[in-house]
Amino acid sequence: MYDFEFYNPTRLLFGRSSLEQLDTLVPNDARVLLLYGGQSAKRNGTLAQVSQVLGKRICAEFGGISPNPNYHQLLQAVEQIRQQKLDFILAIGGGSIIDAGKFIAAAAPYQGEPWEILETDGRHIDQALPLGTVLTLPATGSEMNNCAVISNSALGLKRSFRHPSVFPRFSVLAPQLSFSLPQPQIANGVVDAFVHVTEQYLTYPVDAKVQDRFAEGLLLTLIEEGPKALAEPENYQVRANIMFSATMALNGLIGTGVPQDWSTHKLGHELTVRHGLDHAVTLAILLPTMLRLRKAAKHAKLLQYAERVWQLSDGSEEQRIDAAIELTRQFFESMGLKTHLSDYGIGHEAIAPLLENLERQGLTQLGEDGRVDLELSRQVFQASL
Amino acid sequence: MYDFEFYNPTRLLFGRSSLEQLDTLVPNDARVLLLYGGQSAKRNGTLAQVSQVLGKRICAEFGGISPNPNYHQLLQAVEQIRQQKLDFILAIGGGSIIDAGKFIAAAAPYQGEPWEILETDGRHIDQALPLGTVLTLPATGSEMNNCAVISNSALGLKRSFRHPSVFPRFSVLAPQLSFSLPQPQIANGVVDAFVHVTEQYLTYPVDAKVQDRFAEGLLLTLIEEGPKALAEPENYQVRANIMFSATMALNGLIGTGVPQDWSTHKLGHELTVRHGLDHAVTLAILLPTMLRLRKAAKHAKLLQYAERVWQLSDGSEEQRIDAAIELTRQFFESMGLKTHLSDYGIGHEAIAPLLENLERQGLTQLGEDGRVDLELSRQVFQASL
Repeated sequence: MYDFEFYNPTRLLFGRSSLEQLDTLVPNDARVLLLYGGQSAKRNGTLAQVSQVLGKRICAEFGGISPNPNYHQLLQAVEQIRQQKLDFILAIGGGSIIDAGKFIAAAAPYQGEPWEILETDGRHIDQALPLGTVLTLPATGSEMNNCAVISNSALGLKRSFRHPSVFPRFSVLAPQLSFSLPQPQIANGVVDAFVHVTEQYLTYPVDAKVQDRFAEGLLLTLIEEGPKALAEPENYQVRANIMFSATMALNGLIGTGVPQDWSTHKLGHELTVRHGLDHAVTLAILLPTMLRLRKAAKHAKLLQYAERVWQLSDGSEEQRIDAAIELTRQFFESMGLKTHLSDYGIGHEAIAPLLENLERQGLTQLGEDGRVDLELSRQVFQASL
Repeated sequence: MYDFEFYNPTRLLFGRSSLEQLDTLVPNDARVLLLYGGQSAKRNGTLAQVSQVLGKRICAEFGGISPNPNYHQLLQAVEQIRQQKLDFILAIGGGSIIDAGKFIAAAAPYQGEPWEILETDGRHIDQALPLGTVLTLPATGSEMNNCAVISNSALGLKRSFRHPSVFPRFSVLAPQLSFSLPQPQIANGVVDAFVHVTEQYLTYPVDAKVQDRFAEGLLLTLIEEGPKALAEPENYQVRANIMFSATMALNGLIGTGVPQDWSTHKLGHELTVRHGLDHAVTLAILLPTMLRLRKAAKHAKLLQYAERVWQLSDGSEEQRIDAAIELTRQFFESMGLKTHLSDYGIGHEAIAPLLENLERQGLTQLGEDGRVDLELSRQVFQASL
């Protein structure tokens, strides 16, 4: 196990009645910006519920945050906060809304050009507005970490930043709020959480037994509950297990003291920026290919994954690893996600521009060992066609 | 899964070089009380290392804290803090020292009689001095929770309290500091952590898949690493896995949203107070008996435990459960802990006074379902002879 620091002060309120606790969580004199996405928060009544619980507190709204939240749109929210002297952000939605909330929280009191926050990985932040979240979509884990990913569509870039001041003060996790999600969204969420775990688990062994077993526990739970979430959309316990898994997948815990990969995410981001594919779709396409091409570097952990997660004990080590990777791909397909670029009309000609974009950003030494270079990235895209 | 709230703001610094980080963790102008136990912190050099890192900060010492820290001794430390106007407590040691630190932190600024803190489960605390810890003995998890157990030898009582203000601000976990521990202490620590997990896991199922699998991961790790910790006392990775397991066993995470038992702990406390047995020894004696006598109530979880933790799949359900309980007892014995009261010279005549003490404290409806009454407690003691 490597040396590590772990710190996570976000308060979780989890369960059927958690939404009601907003009344004690949000200060009585707060001037609140309610941040949300499309029309679903309005249509399914979550926004109205929140407003009712907040009672007489001063509340303003900023809706219409898109998936892969866009820098220029978020600047409008920052402007609104400054003009209306708002001092508390309540993000209602999934990871995109919460990421947006983190950026707005840091940008509103920021002295310089807010783009600097993303160019410097948050290093120059010295304060942020307090942020709370109401999670409606289990997926990204953003509700319990201090990281956010923001897109700049004008520049064709995705950038992330992290800072302790943007840990949500609290996150309300009410699994029943996810009942009304369209099936592709819950499927995407399960796949996203699954790949968050593999990025921290499928690397090389460092004798971190607790982290390994926690990671395996999350993968097993997602494999069991994912298909049930599609078949029984109002099964509370299934949604609760998925929601808690997704939060635990990226709250820092399973990644403490272990090597981390994230190359699948980096390559996937390029597909999202250039071709508009859902984030989870890019992961479902690229992860099986990445694992196949990185079998040598990841041999020991892939073997452990085959045994503990997929209960594979027959055949040679190579055969067990191949079977585990194929079962991973089939799991994504069973969640309704297609796992080839060609399923989305993306062909061979798309690869060169993707590689150029990677090179332009200096993303030429990815993975837990820095060995995912442009040539290997090319092979991953090629094998994913 | 039940509804739950989870909040744990303790910062963990884990690893070989974590002690050096005290210099940034303790405020420069802090007036520090260094709290420690017997002579080992002095002899093995930990105290000197800490003092060196703290440099020119004002430091006072209070040593000699005993296992099962005693209320009346702790009042002397409170007095010292008030007289010397100290404002930061650094607890160096295992769970007893850290529990003592929490009580002192809460008692020093407390307006009334400090015993009230323990009589009211901390309800009237409104502030506490900041507390940091340097963990030398993996066992209780106190380094990452807000709970403390304090004894009052004059009254023959153990009392606990909890309050958010006594979460350690940080805990330094340096596995190498445990190398010099006497074998019985590391064995006790492993058993203590193991039973912390079973108290939160071996109850009845509520479909909390993540919590179950995290609990199983900790049990598996302790079973694998415990005997190695005795055989290879300077194996860093083994000590690291045990230390992280013990912290995760009682930091609130695996107990969120699930029923909890704690009857073995309550009965064990009586054995410690009246007969002076080590805390872990009482657990090793009582847990196997408790599980055997509670097989009906715990059937489903015991079966899952047999399968997932002990890999038992042959025989009837009853046989698998019996085998899992027996393997648990053998595991404790393999750690060097005897598992019968008679091994410690405690006979039949001891039972009546133990039950009287339970009754006097109203501990007559213990366990996750309140069904561990005095008659069942009598049977547990009887079957543990």
